[in-house]
Amino acid sequence: MTAQANVGVVGLAAMGASLARNLAHHGNTVAIYNRTPKRTDTLMEQHGDEGAFVPSYTLQDFVDSLIPPRTAIIMVKAGEPTDEMINALADLMQPGDIIVDAGNAYFPDTMRREKEIRARGLHFVGCGVSGGEEGALKGPSMMPGGTEESWQTLKPILESIAAKAEGEPCVTHIGANGAGHFVKMVHNGIEYSDMQLIAESYDLMRRGLGMSANEIGDVFEQWNKSELESYLIEITADVLHEQDKTTGKPLVDIILDHAGMKGTGTWTVQTALSLGVPVTGIAEAVFARGLSSQTALRQGAQAIDFAGPDGSLQLSEQERESFIEDIRHALYASKIVAYAQGFNEITTAAQEYDWKIDLAAVARIWRGGCIIRAKFLNRIAEAFESGQAETSLLFAPYFKEAIEQAQASWRRVVARAAQYGIPTPVFASSLSYFDGLRADRLPAALIQGQRDYFGAHTYQRVDKEGTFHTLWAEEGRPEINA
Amino acid sequence: MTAQANVGVVGLAAMGASLARNLAHHGNTVAIYNRTPKRTDTLMEQHGDEGAFVPSYTLQDFVDSLIPPRTAIIMVKAGEPTDEMINALADLMQPGDIIVDAGNAYFPDTMRREKEIRARGLHFVGCGVSGGEEGALKGPSMMPGGTEESWQTLKPILESIAAKAEGEPCVTHIGANGAGHFVKMVHNGIEYSDMQLIAESYDLMRRGLGMSANEIGDVFEQWNKSELESYLIEITADVLHEQDKTTGKPLVDIILDHAGMKGTGTWTVQTALSLGVPVTGIAEAVFARGLSSQTALRQGAQAIDFAGPDGSLQLSEQERESFIEDIRHALYASKIVAYAQGFNEITTAAQEYDWKIDLAAVARIWRGGCIIRAKFLNRIAEAFESGQAETSLLFAPYFKEAIEQAQASWRRVVARAAQYGIPTPVFASSLSYFDGLRADRLPAALIQGQRDYFGAHTYQRVDKEGTFHTLWAEEGRPEINA
Repeated sequence: MTAQANVGVVGLAAMGASLARNLAHHGNTVAIYNRTPKRTDTLMEQHGDEGAFVPSYTLQDFVDSLIPPRTAIIMVKAGEPTDEMINALADLMQPGDIIVDAGNAYFPDTMRREKEIRARGLHFVGCGVSGGEEGALKGPSMMPGGTEESWQTLKPILESIAAKAEGEPCVTHIGANGAGHFVKMVHNGIEYSDMQLIAESYDLMRRGLGMSANEIGDVFEQWNKSELESYLIEITADVLHEQDKTTGKPLVDIILDHAGMKGTGTWTVQTALSLGVPVTGIAEAVFARGLSSQTALRQGAQAIDFAGPDGSLQLSEQERESFIEDIRHALYASKIVAYAQGFNEITTAAQEYDWKIDLAAVARIWRGGCIIRAKFLNRIAEAFESGQAETSLLFAPYFKEAIEQAQASWRRVVARAAQYGIPTPVFASSLSYFDGLRADRLPAALIQGQRDYFGAHTYQRVDKEGTFHTLWAEEGRPEINA
Repeated sequence: MTAQANVGVVGLAAMGASLARNLAHHGNTVAIYNRTPKRTDTLMEQHGDEGAFVPSYTLQDFVDSLIPPRTAIIMVKAGEPTDEMINALADLMQPGDIIVDAGNAYFPDTMRREKEIRARGLHFVGCGVSGGEEGALKGPSMMPGGTEESWQTLKPILESIAAKAEGEPCVTHIGANGAGHFVKMVHNGIEYSDMQLIAESYDLMRRGLGMSANEIGDVFEQWNKSELESYLIEITADVLHEQDKTTGKPLVDIILDHAGMKGTGTWTVQTALSLGVPVTGIAEAVFARGLSSQTALRQGAQAIDFAGPDGSLQLSEQERESFIEDIRHALYASKIVAYAQGFNEITTAAQEYDWKIDLAAVARIWRGGCIIRAKFLNRIAEAFESGQAETSLLFAPYFKEAIEQAQASWRRVVARAAQYGIPTPVFASSLSYFDGLRADRLPAALIQGQRDYFGAHTYQRVDKEGTFHTLWAEEGRPEINA
């Protein structure tokens, strides 16, 4: 094989094939390889005329067809298949070559792989890719980690295929080793809370106000002209407007109400717990999906028939319109909290792992191509650029004001949902986070007292330095034996 | 050394020394060893006359002083020191001997160690011990894992030192390998939510109703005569009644309101996430501690001075008494949810790891010695014995009724806290869980629609088997590029 391709793609399932085509559409000469030759042939047959492809049927030919420094993008199954392919490529490549893992790897795996491959003189880049199959084909948002040096080679290639937001390509070098996959993971976590917030809003209108799926679709369509303008709000309107062809009913009523998940939300929360960062909105969203899928638990609850309010919010005709506005404000406020928490997780990880991450740039590359693309990411980018959001996004004047203005509505929504029996785990949790954050004193002092009482864990004082222990009620202590 | 001791303790820091003394107080002949001889000498000097101790200054002597089958309880630092001591002991012991790790190990570590030690023909028992230093001395609640065979040897020893609840020793064989440490971990997770619920109740009375610490201490003293009767409620009254000697103020006002933690709560939530079990109450409690300790974030929030309600619940004099009752009911209902979630985590893990765990027995051994000891654990034990709590504790008639009776109060508390700005993350989250559980339809159907729209993840239908994919709004799909 003559070295002729400036980039290669290994693994030609849906995502890999779409990426390869996207690359070819944008002037790249794309080496392609798949373990089983059929996928390579199919791609060549169906899309071979869309640009310059160089198919190979052995990994050696694939590597030989790449112009040094070689850039190979892997898009194979996570876990062992990824490790095997990385090592097989590394065996055939030369120092200075670049292996890009564009799958959804867990960032500690990426850090391990980067270390191993770097020791062999090659570059390893974990690259988060968001936007699904359609994004991969038409323009994803991409979050590459790895060395600055590898970024110099990757930049023109990735910029050529990235989504564009207001003319700017949705890709930037996130930081060293696992930073790219880390940021992609948090992106997905935020996506979970965004989706759950929309679901809670829908539930409040559907069960709470008795509106039809179609009417609620219209509301989301309206909301998409507000500060909530975003991909997820837009497709929610589409989903709610969709009719089931067999029954003629709204499709959302026919879909089984068990939400699935694939792990990145779970990772986001587990990692936040290790880092000590509260991501309550994301956690509640992950748990809400979990609860929805627990068939035995939910069927058992139906069989046992708990007494309690039926979810009707008991609003008069004239209160309804303003309550829909309340929901919109509550959604916006809670969304801001979820983003604030997600960015806190990134900041904390950056300190922990010594990554230099430009948060404004992260916000900007999420404006196009990815699932959480939204107008308000421009405001987030500005907030980080201003330096006022360093500790929390909520501290930037724009978001402080937004949340203050939404506050009364937000409180009414959480209060009424609690009273009338609609679950609003993320609305309520985000509000508690906000109220906890702004509290001058928290009851954590009592918890420290308890911990010192039963475990001699000591406490600090507000009025002097040091750690202290109290000999609590020595004589009157409760009995161990009951 | 002559073999004369029926049990030995390795590691004589606070917990180990207390365990050794407790063993000696109850007729055991106790071999003791510590890496540095000073601790051994101190124990012999200060407590040598409390029972039959056999001190050793080498590990070989320690092992030789034990009667076969030897039982050695390790109480050393978690992590590497524990691994090192286990291996050093295993090198000197004989097949059939038993090594007990009584530290707070993470259960996957216990599973790994059990496997390694079993391969060498010895027994390894990970044993959760709750009750702190005082419990270790006067009677802890103990949760041993490991083989049934090792339990036969350990039973009389551990029963001799366990706390007694209504005459029964607070120890039982939990299940194979890591089951004991797993159940201890969940115990600690439940402890986190118990403590946070008490803290939220306190905050509602303190800031919400403007009561003094002392007055609230009186309320908790009263509550300890109700269905809430428990160790934590009892010591809360003590903590709130405690005056600071220097300032004369309530000590709780002098304690810095940053709650610490040591990791078991975090593990409980991370593990629940891996198992797919919603433990929202525990998660919110862990996050609330995390938030309380984020100094920069909290100081920043004070500096920026968010507009919003000041936490006063705006209640008239005659409403106050009944609102205090509301808080009590809310606390009880939320506590039941936290236990239901914790037991679900145990049940799910038991399936995952093939443990046979008697949940009623678990509830019974938590009635004495440990931090969450409480009267209502008798009701929990009965619920599991009746077979009606298999899927959820909430399904047992006693708890169904309890939660239904508390429900109106619970809703009032969450609603009012949301309106007037008191954070109630665990109250609110538990209520959302309850409302999610009892909902006939959840908005998860919308989430499944969104997932199928953007990621072709497919969905199931309510009216027929199979997985389905919709070609959503093919023509009118949102643009990738903004």
